[in-house]
Amino acid sequence: MRTPLFSILLVFMLSIIAAFPITSTAQTHTVTSPENVLSVTFGLNDGVPFYSVDRFGVPVISPSRLGFQLQGTAPLDRNFRIAAHHTETFDETWTQVWGEKKHIRNHYNELRVELQEAEGARREMSVVFRVYDDGIGFRYEIPEQENLPVIDILDELTEFTLTGNHTAWWVGAYQWNRFEYYPQETPLSAVDTVHTPLTMKTADDLYLSFHEAALVDYSTMTLERTEGYTLKANLMPWADGVRVKGGTSVITPWRTIQISDTPGGLFTSYLILNLNEPNKIEDTSWIKPSKYVGIWWEMHLDKSTWGSGEKHGATTENAKRYIDFAAEHGFDHVLVEGWNTGWDGEWYASGVVFSFTEPYEDFDLEGVAQYALDNGVRLMGHHETSASVLHYEDQMEDAFALYERLGVRAVKSGYVGHGQEIFWLDDDGEPQYEWHHGQFMVNHHQRVVELAARHKIALNVHEGVKDTGLRRTWPNLMTREVAIGQEYNAWGEAGGNPPEYTVQLPFTRSLAGPFDYTPGVVDLHFDQYRPDNRIKSTLAKELALYITIYSPLHMAADLPEHYEARPDALEFIKMVPTDWYDTKVLHASIGNYVTIVRKDVNSDDWYLGSITDENGRFLEAPLHFLDRDREYNAIIYRDGHDADWESNPYDMVIEEITVNANTILPIRLAAGGGQVIRFTPVP
Amino acid sequence: MRTPLFSILLVFMLSIIAAFPITSTAQTHTVTSPENVLSVTFGLNDGVPFYSVDRFGVPVISPSRLGFQLQGTAPLDRNFRIAAHHTETFDETWTQVWGEKKHIRNHYNELRVELQEAEGARREMSVVFRVYDDGIGFRYEIPEQENLPVIDILDELTEFTLTGNHTAWWVGAYQWNRFEYYPQETPLSAVDTVHTPLTMKTADDLYLSFHEAALVDYSTMTLERTEGYTLKANLMPWADGVRVKGGTSVITPWRTIQISDTPGGLFTSYLILNLNEPNKIEDTSWIKPSKYVGIWWEMHLDKSTWGSGEKHGATTENAKRYIDFAAEHGFDHVLVEGWNTGWDGEWYASGVVFSFTEPYEDFDLEGVAQYALDNGVRLMGHHETSASVLHYEDQMEDAFALYERLGVRAVKSGYVGHGQEIFWLDDDGEPQYEWHHGQFMVNHHQRVVELAARHKIALNVHEGVKDTGLRRTWPNLMTREVAIGQEYNAWGEAGGNPPEYTVQLPFTRSLAGPFDYTPGVVDLHFDQYRPDNRIKSTLAKELALYITIYSPLHMAADLPEHYEARPDALEFIKMVPTDWYDTKVLHASIGNYVTIVRKDVNSDDWYLGSITDENGRFLEAPLHFLDRDREYNAIIYRDGHDADWESNPYDMVIEEITVNANTILPIRLAAGGGQVIRFTPVP
Repeated sequence: MRTPLFSILLVFMLSIIAAFPITSTAQTHTVTSPENVLSVTFGLNDGVPFYSVDRFGVPVISPSRLGFQLQGTAPLDRNFRIAAHHTETFDETWTQVWGEKKHIRNHYNELRVELQEAEGARREMSVVFRVYDDGIGFRYEIPEQENLPVIDILDELTEFTLTGNHTAWWVGAYQWNRFEYYPQETPLSAVDTVHTPLTMKTADDLYLSFHEAALVDYSTMTLERTEGYTLKANLMPWADGVRVKGGTSVITPWRTIQISDTPGGLFTSYLILNLNEPNKIEDTSWIKPSKYVGIWWEMHLDKSTWGSGEKHGATTENAKRYIDFAAEHGFDHVLVEGWNTGWDGEWYASGVVFSFTEPYEDFDLEGVAQYALDNGVRLMGHHETSASVLHYEDQMEDAFALYERLGVRAVKSGYVGHGQEIFWLDDDGEPQYEWHHGQFMVNHHQRVVELAARHKIALNVHEGVKDTGLRRTWPNLMTREVAIGQEYNAWGEAGGNPPEYTVQLPFTRSLAGPFDYTPGVVDLHFDQYRPDNRIKSTLAKELALYITIYSPLHMAADLPEHYEARPDALEFIKMVPTDWYDTKVLHASIGNYVTIVRKDVNSDDWYLGSITDENGRFLEAPLHFLDRDREYNAIIYRDGHDADWESNPYDMVIEEITVNANTILPIRLAAGGGQVIRFTPVP
Repeated sequence: MRTPLFSILLVFMLSIIAAFPITSTAQTHTVTSPENVLSVTFGLNDGVPFYSVDRFGVPVISPSRLGFQLQGTAPLDRNFRIAAHHTETFDETWTQVWGEKKHIRNHYNELRVELQEAEGARREMSVVFRVYDDGIGFRYEIPEQENLPVIDILDELTEFTLTGNHTAWWVGAYQWNRFEYYPQETPLSAVDTVHTPLTMKTADDLYLSFHEAALVDYSTMTLERTEGYTLKANLMPWADGVRVKGGTSVITPWRTIQISDTPGGLFTSYLILNLNEPNKIEDTSWIKPSKYVGIWWEMHLDKSTWGSGEKHGATTENAKRYIDFAAEHGFDHVLVEGWNTGWDGEWYASGVVFSFTEPYEDFDLEGVAQYALDNGVRLMGHHETSASVLHYEDQMEDAFALYERLGVRAVKSGYVGHGQEIFWLDDDGEPQYEWHHGQFMVNHHQRVVELAARHKIALNVHEGVKDTGLRRTWPNLMTREVAIGQEYNAWGEAGGNPPEYTVQLPFTRSLAGPFDYTPGVVDLHFDQYRPDNRIKSTLAKELALYITIYSPLHMAADLPEHYEARPDALEFIKMVPTDWYDTKVLHASIGNYVTIVRKDVNSDDWYLGSITDENGRFLEAPLHFLDRDREYNAIIYRDGHDADWESNPYDMVIEEITVNANTILPIRLAAGGGQVIRFTPVP
């Protein structure tokens, strides 16, 4: 923790915040969404830029400041005049390479306002608003100009002033380093500095999500409550305190506010993707959504170790055992963690330890990779960087080239760091650092994804930067962790993930993008290894996570021997797709329950996943999404009559019935329970 | 107000309330609902009877007391043993004469516990629980027995102990006299003494409604918060303080708790009806759901008066004008208020003033009734009792006989009282009273409905006792007011009904039963009459009330000349049915928005009504309820692009499109707006 620096910045920022009364002489321009649901007003108030957002004429964002503090020169936040403004309408439907929905409509009205200082240096800055029916995005553009030769941003002044003490779901940005906290549900007035996505619900049952899109060559935005109901951008800094080193021009990420009458409306909003640039990878044929197994959960159970020695998990023999299992059951990749030298000792504390090309002696990398290919399976590579980024960058060209040669198509990366920040030793052996989510790391991750693309390798990033929709531009950036995953059930201090966590996820972490939660643990108690821990879920709920959590790379996380003991559950995990034609939300209550249906992109099958928290539910699901001209065979995996996460988690009934678009299915979820259904058209 | 008496009773009751810790030796019996959703446990704790309710193993009602305080004898609340207990399962589907759903399934498991005092008088009492998947009902039965010759109940001790500080929607029982308040939304801890239905939402997004079913020969139950989260039955008393004069045996109404994961689940729960006795009227062919117009709104606008004189509304000429309008547009009844002598002067303060058979001189009752019949219309009768109930009872046989002879099939009654309580002068001219909702009045209303049935007359009761589902037993008891209606928009001190009121109604007042709100006012400003008042609604929302509020007698409340100025709106009011084959809820958020669809009982048409509060909404409605084998023509009445309840309420678009069961319709509701749709199968 670097509290002193952080505190100094906080005091500095607080000193420039004030209430923002709009004068009657304010100069404004307004743009509405296509269906006149939302309207955004941009204005200058005595030369100070602000914006506000209304929904059906009712304020959602009160007038809120815009602008920057710059290093070595006057701020860009006052004394402006509107030099020009333009509006335009955009409407296109684009196709995802893979995703939760195949075809996405991008329909907005745009307002571009070009500002120039009214006197003095007459510096220029534009603000661009895109107004959708389901939310807004805006960004700043600071062009190259004579009177602003270098743009070093000390502070982005963007504010979001809410209209009431809304309920908020958030994870704190306490240590500037990670996202691995359980979401808190509090009044807005209890928010301090938090990560995005930040989710809110108003007293009028309106749902809001604050986030950013297209985070490229900029610092991650957290949100800090500065006073009352006002949040302000709080950018992750460089070590020297500068927030963004912009060079000669800056285009910021989009600041986004998604707004819906329902939680489900947030879940199926594609605004973040729409605000990203189109795909830049010409040949995407090698990017394949898929499922994987691997040598991972057994280390969390302490059955084996990452490090070498008697309990080493990543042995040739063990890897071949997983490959055999994957080949038999049709899994696409086998992840092997702990394969490379460097895992012995306190690797996460000592930095530059890993080789990304040299396997341990008991792991025949080339042989195992070939054995996998011979069995129709591929290795999933693993790059744990220990957050020693420069050390990793030195090796990564060779590392990706090696994996490409071995037929690897996906790499899981990790950034578990020393004291949680990214660090290295300088030429004098002095430790240097940068923050985990600052511009330094944003640019590092960008280098990795572009390098990986050149080697035809997809990424599954753990402990990385949050997802801001870059997967549209770089579809090899497939999934991430960046939240508490399944492993906390093995050893988490809080006794594992509470039943409500997985019903918060769709409306918190998952609003950012795909999540490698690693579901599918079917031995819920693992008494053989960690008798004091367990998964707080019924078996049916664990299966339903494959639907409620989206990831184009989904793990079947449990051990082969555990799956062999539960062939019924395995059967569902084998069949569930990871690439979807469409996604709809049937029920949604944040932190309480959710029912999601998805259509397979490769067939006419639909899948339903429904989960609840520690309370049982008795819901009705109208099957309106089924093609009305067909009958469907439904295979249902549901909690049994006496199922209960705590006392009876394995009571699961599997049954088949025939249904159609007029069917209304009762969805009975036990306490901590769930249900999954596969609908297949009757030929 | 009788505050002193009320206060004395309050102090008395508080003194007997205490926390209810259950000992480990408690003797218990448990019964679960058919799908094992709910379970009810009855027990004796050191001889003191209690019950509790769990849902999926999680407590909803903590152990709560049962029993009675009796006049002149020991209480029936302790020292019991269980003499016998029986369980049984019941499952039948019955058919409503009219209603919001034609066929209703009544499926429950019952636990009957027969109690007997363990020593002393060995008096007996039974408690019967019926446990549904969507709620529970329980009642007491005190049989005739030697050691309890007269049962005068001083207090019913039934408690409902909640598990948290839930959000509650309620109208206060402040004056013991009426229900005409706007629902309050508060934490449970702010509830004092309130009417039922009492609606709650828990932090886990569970919805509860507390009410009673089959209120016959007993006093109305209000609920009083006695401490913490404990509510206790607080029965309306007789003037002498006795709550119920039970005679030699008592069967209480059912105390009901409806429980659902969604507000819509409360709306489509038929538990209250299921707990009432089957229909007792053999020939129901004369009971017809229908629509009416009448001489009523014009008095609220002060265009005319109830009393005689120049502005008298109920003239022969004016009545014929309404009959002509009804005949032309197909309305079934014409209500005429102010037709009978007694309206002049302060009738509501002076009691025994009305004749129920003698018309004013300028109103030719017989001639108007015949004119109506000749034009295919019927008069709707009107009995304003001024709460002088004995005076009314003296005349009511003649009054109903007269109406029957004149072809009247429905009577609207009123109980606007002196100081709001029911009163009369005794033989010495001294004023006597009974409370508006006590056993005295419950029994009066029962006499009226049975008498009306003998005369083939249906009832529309205003200022009466709340609905407890007696319409199942007496289907001529068609509708009631017993809440704030449309007329508050004409002169209400709060500036009329706020936009949120009508979106609270489905989950508060309407949970009791049909509501004669009198919608359909299409001149929303009525500037000619009351320029300082208006209806806080768009025109499309006013139409949607015909769907969101259920009444088998729905008024088209506006003046004929106002309808003639808005023929488009009138066209919808003419077509909308008042009797339904089925009802489903598509969206529901209490006090925020609701979308309800209903299927006409006489055709294959469906109707959708959607309304919102002061916030606009942009929802999606999947049309899963449509028969999947058909295409439908949809006539849509929706808020226009710039509609807004405050600034632009008449902006309404009418359009026709073709839809089917796979269609997902966007439902765009302006601030304070609404939408109605009629779906008709394409032949």
